[in-house]
Amino acid sequence: VRAVDIIQKKRDGHELGRDEIAFFVDGYTRGSIPDYQASAFAMAVFFRGMTAAETVALTESMMRTGEVLDLSDLPGPRVDKHSTGGVGDKTSLILAPLAAAAGAFVPMISGRGLGHTGGTLDKLESIPGFRVSLSLKEFRETLHKCGLGLIGQTPEIAPADRKLYALRDVTATVESLPLIASSIMSKKMAEGIDALILDVKTGDGAFMKKFEDSKALAEAMVRIGRGMGKKVSALITDMEQPLGRTVGNALEVKESVETLQGRGPKDLESLSLELAAWMLHLAGIAPGLDAARTRVRDALASGAGLRKFQEVIELQGGDPRVCDDTSRLPQARETVELRSEAEGRVAGIACRTVGQAGMLLGAGRETVDSRIDPAVGIVLHKKVGDPVREGESLMTLHVDDRGRLEEATRLLRQAVRVAREAPPATPLVRLVLDR
Amino acid sequence: VRAVDIIQKKRDGHELGRDEIAFFVDGYTRGSIPDYQASAFAMAVFFRGMTAAETVALTESMMRTGEVLDLSDLPGPRVDKHSTGGVGDKTSLILAPLAAAAGAFVPMISGRGLGHTGGTLDKLESIPGFRVSLSLKEFRETLHKCGLGLIGQTPEIAPADRKLYALRDVTATVESLPLIASSIMSKKMAEGIDALILDVKTGDGAFMKKFEDSKALAEAMVRIGRGMGKKVSALITDMEQPLGRTVGNALEVKESVETLQGRGPKDLESLSLELAAWMLHLAGIAPGLDAARTRVRDALASGAGLRKFQEVIELQGGDPRVCDDTSRLPQARETVELRSEAEGRVAGIACRTVGQAGMLLGAGRETVDSRIDPAVGIVLHKKVGDPVREGESLMTLHVDDRGRLEEATRLLRQAVRVAREAPPATPLVRLVLDR
Repeated sequence: VRAVDIIQKKRDGHELGRDEIAFFVDGYTRGSIPDYQASAFAMAVFFRGMTAAETVALTESMMRTGEVLDLSDLPGPRVDKHSTGGVGDKTSLILAPLAAAAGAFVPMISGRGLGHTGGTLDKLESIPGFRVSLSLKEFRETLHKCGLGLIGQTPEIAPADRKLYALRDVTATVESLPLIASSIMSKKMAEGIDALILDVKTGDGAFMKKFEDSKALAEAMVRIGRGMGKKVSALITDMEQPLGRTVGNALEVKESVETLQGRGPKDLESLSLELAAWMLHLAGIAPGLDAARTRVRDALASGAGLRKFQEVIELQGGDPRVCDDTSRLPQARETVELRSEAEGRVAGIACRTVGQAGMLLGAGRETVDSRIDPAVGIVLHKKVGDPVREGESLMTLHVDDRGRLEEATRLLRQAVRVAREAPPATPLVRLVLDR
Repeated sequence: VRAVDIIQKKRDGHELGRDEIAFFVDGYTRGSIPDYQASAFAMAVFFRGMTAAETVALTESMMRTGEVLDLSDLPGPRVDKHSTGGVGDKTSLILAPLAAAAGAFVPMISGRGLGHTGGTLDKLESIPGFRVSLSLKEFRETLHKCGLGLIGQTPEIAPADRKLYALRDVTATVESLPLIASSIMSKKMAEGIDALILDVKTGDGAFMKKFEDSKALAEAMVRIGRGMGKKVSALITDMEQPLGRTVGNALEVKESVETLQGRGPKDLESLSLELAAWMLHLAGIAPGLDAARTRVRDALASGAGLRKFQEVIELQGGDPRVCDDTSRLPQARETVELRSEAEGRVAGIACRTVGQAGMLLGAGRETVDSRIDPAVGIVLHKKVGDPVREGESLMTLHVDDRGRLEEATRLLRQAVRVAREAPPATPLVRLVLDR
């Protein structure tokens, strides 16, 4: 087999075999297949797509270039959630403790934020002392002790994916459904989980803006996961406005703690509970989804979820007192109100624009090398449908560096649309993929 | 401008501007754009194609990465022929001297053979002492002295094309019409010519087997040449059987000399004369194609073409006596006859197979690094339509190394089809593109 023949076969629209895909992925990871053949291959995949069998084979091959955690010694099912990323999406911080409190093991490997989207690792790191870069040994110990662990991708996990993703980024081959789906799943499936609930965002603030694209991505990922013998379902959820009321790392941790205290915003609480219930359901911990929902709600009401969060924070070197006193989280130097110039109802909050404004304030990364300011961000006082009076505050900006404040404010002013009438509310969960 | 944006623009089917194409080609040649971006670009071009304007811009950009000969000091028009390659195609050796004898200047830069096709350089090198690697200075001097020069591609000519072609070869991006056409034309247009006749082969032994593909390639090349302000036309000519009666380097030189002596096979003579006439016509040397045909025929009949060939051989270091005594050319150690097992008429000679058999005997290259044996090859005694008796010789194999003789013989036996009836003769020139 020669790499060029595999490229040509894909180019000409023929289905590749498992062995051919494994040969290509292994060779590329080891360096015997050069970047220029991998980029030509990726472009051929962009145009020709991949069958379900090819996509599973690609995912498995990429996963097997690195370590695949064996967590079978944990005394219970292992389950995780993956979100395709959004603005104000801090459900991981809420659902992981809740699911762990209800008896699941949650070995969560997360990413960092880029552009308008936030990342779980950045949020966790706003907790003073919290270490996301545990060794795999420490990760195991944490899981054994408290039922969850929250870390970043290690170099041992799916090195093929890291190498290929960097190449795709500079060869205009990112936007390929099978490549996106296999990239995500190769990392998630390396966690050694039995079940996975996917939260595929759709709308202005999502990676995939169009519902049909989000649905296609969700379907592709569900197919891969099931093709690898795991319990995988997907929720397609709304990202037309930020989730909850905060955008910015410490602000989002604060809101997560409040949600675990039972005082969170309704949209954030309900999506977090629903995803946690799906985790228990897929992991077979509860007999059916409704029973799972009850168990998750109990874990919230009893405070078991909050205590679990406190426990993992302490085990990972963070200050557990933030769960009792969120003022221990980093605070920005000043706050600035953005007031409404009109009266009526909030008809829309351009989600991506809010994320970009947060990035300008320092809450997000413009490039992978940008530094994040954990304290800054945005607190939304009004969401879509809320009534608003002229001069009333729409949001509070938490600011450390005024350098780009003006630009951020201008963006945020454009982002909020006030009108006489608000559109009818869209459901948070747009579709469930559970066939 | 970033390379990745240019790749994406092409990937998404938008037309690239001249500046974008020049930026990409220059960057790639200098090394600031890496191979992996160039291969992704080439694959995007494979799928999306290129507009006429893009193809012209690509050709010009590649040409301008190297030296473009300025031959304006020659006292007459400069014109060349380019063939897409075939089996037994030695017209260059005949038409270049004829056109030069009739008053044109022919700065011919040719290639080597690969696979089943032969190359002009290999044929010329079978003439004892002949040097195809003149410096550009020597090339100019030769052109000034005798009106033609016959050399190989120098490193100074279109380095972008050489680099890109090597990359395309290993990334399954060879088979792209705009890339093929611009590759050929970037080198030809660097010759500093005013006019060019293209001989695009079609049929079993051609690079493009299907007539429609050959036509598309011819049209693309004609468009490029005219887009660059040159007189360019194309003949699409038949390559369903070998041209003339010989395949193999010294054998083809011998046949070319015989043709210049007026004793060549009809098909070879007529195509060589026709192409030479087109050269004179396009160069404006003769008032119309018919007048050009007369001048070329005169140059043949008077022996001026043969003398011109002798002159260029001597100027390029070769033994000019081969034009009087072809036995001075390399001779194979032995000859083997392939006899007909049937009686009837030759109904077909699988052209590519004959080329491959020649390659096995040592007349061609299996890979670019293979060594060629100038003496070996095949002499066809029967062409399509000829009557044949059982036991009569179909061809003579000129052999030095019996190592792969059996394999070659088996191929050749498969190649010749004898039947009761031969199909009607196809015209040698299938189409003229002269709009």
